[in-house]
Amino acid sequence: MSADNSARVSVLGLGAMGTALAAALVDAGHTTAVWNRTAGKAEPLVARGATAVDTVAEALEADVVIACLLDAASVREVLDPVADRLAGRTLVNVTTTSPDQSRELAAWAAGLGAAYLDGGIMAVPAMIGRPGSSILYSGSRAVFEQHRSLLDLWGESAYFGEDAGLASLYDLALLSGMYIMFAGFAHGAAMVAPAGVTAGEFAQRSAAWLSAMTGQLAGLAEVVDGGDYTVEGQQSLEFSSLDDLIAAAKAQGISTEPIDMVQNLIQRQIDAGHGKEGFARIIESIKHPA
Amino acid sequence: MSADNSARVSVLGLGAMGTALAAALVDAGHTTAVWNRTAGKAEPLVARGATAVDTVAEALEADVVIACLLDAASVREVLDPVADRLAGRTLVNVTTTSPDQSRELAAWAAGLGAAYLDGGIMAVPAMIGRPGSSILYSGSRAVFEQHRSLLDLWGESAYFGEDAGLASLYDLALLSGMYIMFAGFAHGAAMVAPAGVTAGEFAQRSAAWLSAMTGQLAGLAEVVDGGDYTVEGQQSLEFSSLDDLIAAAKAQGISTEPIDMVQNLIQRQIDAGHGKEGFARIIESIKHPA
Ligand SMILES: NC(=O)c1ccc[n+]([C@@H]2O[C@H](COP(=O)([O-])OP(=O)(O)OC[C@H]3O[C@@H](n4cnc5c(N)ncnc54)[C@H](OP(=O)(O)O)[C@@H]3O)[C@@H](O)[C@H]2O)c1
Ligand SMILES: NC(=O)c1ccc[n+]([C@@H]2O[C@H](COP(=O)([O-])OP(=O)(O)OC[C@H]3O[C@@H](n4cnc5c(N)ncnc54)[C@H](OP(=O)(O)O)[C@@H]3O)[C@@H](O)[C@H]2O)c1
Repeated sequence: MSADNSARVSVLGLGAMGTALAAALVDAGHTTAVWNRTAGKAEPLVARGATAVDTVAEALEADVVIACLLDAASVREVLDPVADRLAGRTLVNVTTTSPDQSRELAAWAAGLGAAYLDGGIMAVPAMIGRPGSSILYSGSRAVFEQHRSLLDLWGESAYFGEDAGLASLYDLALLSGMYIMFAGFAHGAAMVAPAGVTAGEFAQRSAAWLSAMTGQLAGLAEVVDGGDYTVEGQQSLEFSSLDDLIAAAKAQGISTEPIDMVQNLIQRQIDAGHGKEGFARIIESIKHPA
Repeated sequence: MSADNSARVSVLGLGAMGTALAAALVDAGHTTAVWNRTAGKAEPLVARGATAVDTVAEALEADVVIACLLDAASVREVLDPVADRLAGRTLVNVTTTSPDQSRELAAWAAGLGAAYLDGGIMAVPAMIGRPGSSILYSGSRAVFEQHRSLLDLWGESAYFGEDAGLASLYDLALLSGMYIMFAGFAHGAAMVAPAGVTAGEFAQRSAAWLSAMTGQLAGLAEVVDGGDYTVEGQQSLEFSSLDDLIAAAKAQGISTEPIDMVQNLIQRQIDAGHGKEGFARIIESIKHPA
């Protein structure tokens, strides 16, 4: 991490995330202007050393303008009124947007003569600047490279390419994995609850277990990338049948939806005659919807 | 970890897992007899220092008999013919079984005068004896305590109680979480694939991200255990709407089943009027099936 803190920065949007991003910049010594639609949210940051500005136009007077708003529409809502002042500006938009929305924003910014870097934040506000936080970028490589040390203040920075939609795509792919994992945790907690196990007790073990099991992903990926689901040493789809898990969930009186989802992916491959092939093949059920 | 390796052990079942368990025992200096239905699988273990026995009856001549077979039925198939020799024996069954099957096996063993400890292995064979491996036990506390140092050779040992079904219940709850997480990974990998991202590249980032996100489980659990889904500081169910993720998956032409599953859990709570409450409330959709 470089100690270059000479860039003057603005942050548009002081929700939970924008506040965390701005705080990290202030703490690192950047001259930081902050703006929020609703007044009052800047106060803690001002106490920390930031400057609150009343208009978006003032916020544009910076080397880098960070947007951390609600969604793509709010980014346009905030910046459209000052569109004529965006030429020559550098915009880093870390608002969550879809790949297509990121591409549209990049095209819109390019049309106005602004440099545009799109970011997807893989962290919750409390993680910003701490281990485990990473932010995915795509769009202007020049902006990424020039401001890398600033971006690294928030977490590990990764750049995917000039297609502004790539970071969002990655972001959404990772986020959906997180939500799906959370649903799996909730399913497990619901399963043990009738036996008197608290969610907290289950969470502790579940966190350790799921963390350890992420070690299996590289192996699954290797099979997928190899393109041959018959290679030795894999757990077969037939062996992976989740009937026992589903029966146990039913016996506990809980919904089997989360595990039915996986079983359906497995079953479609078995039905197509691939039961002896590896579990990694479930990705084919996803790539080619029924 | 104690260095007590005086217990004479037998292992029934030399599949991938039974072989890994037996190897750890041999390496720790235990006198280890091994048996497998199909001949030949004992050879690598014999080369390592184990003794192959031809009959299950011979395998029973040990202080601890480990069963690592396919399923509950195969345990009975292997042990029923020697049922009259089980009195006074100690059986540790680490074959994956349902909670009810574990209880049945415990009752059956008790009826024959054998001490029974049920185990659920939370590891793949390559992890046995290494960090991240844990094995869950329930049933005879006396067996667990007496042979703790032996059990610890395989991984972290946890004991849940005299109800022999508890370890299986926990095991299945954790396993279902793993399969659901794997499906989430596959969904993400399928999502980025059309943009030219390999599964291996995605796996690397996904593993780090999902590991980091297991840090959120304790917080979700705290809300569940607190019984009040309206406490401050949570991401609301409404905010968690996965419409954007689903739209992005659709735009990539892939199946949205894994993420639809989560969205349905969220939506049922929103429909019931709880949209402003925390995401942790999805567990209610699971505890009370539609
Ligand atoms: N929080 C997280 O864990 C997290 C993680 C990764 C990514 N993100 C992303 O980061 C972004 C911000 O999240 P957050 O947690 O900070 O959300 P938040 O706490 O709800 O804050 C939302 C911010 O957007 C502003 N805003 C919304 N609509 C606006 C509009 N039409 N015009 C102007 N300002 C508008 C709000 O201003 P007001 O104060 O005036 O309402 C507020 O500053 C989102 O895209 C989110 O997906 C968040
Ligand atoms: N592998 C894992 O990652 C893993 C993880 C956690 C738990 N487990 C559990 O550990 C147990 C063993 O798994 P594994 O991976 O070792 O499986 P495996 O490689 O398929 O081996 C299965 C073993 O069971 C034996 N068997 C099957 N049916 C039998 C029968 N009717 N009578 C006698 N023996 C029979 C097989 O003997 P033959 O050689 O004669 O066929 C073989 O020794 C399973 O319950 C599994 O769920 C495995």
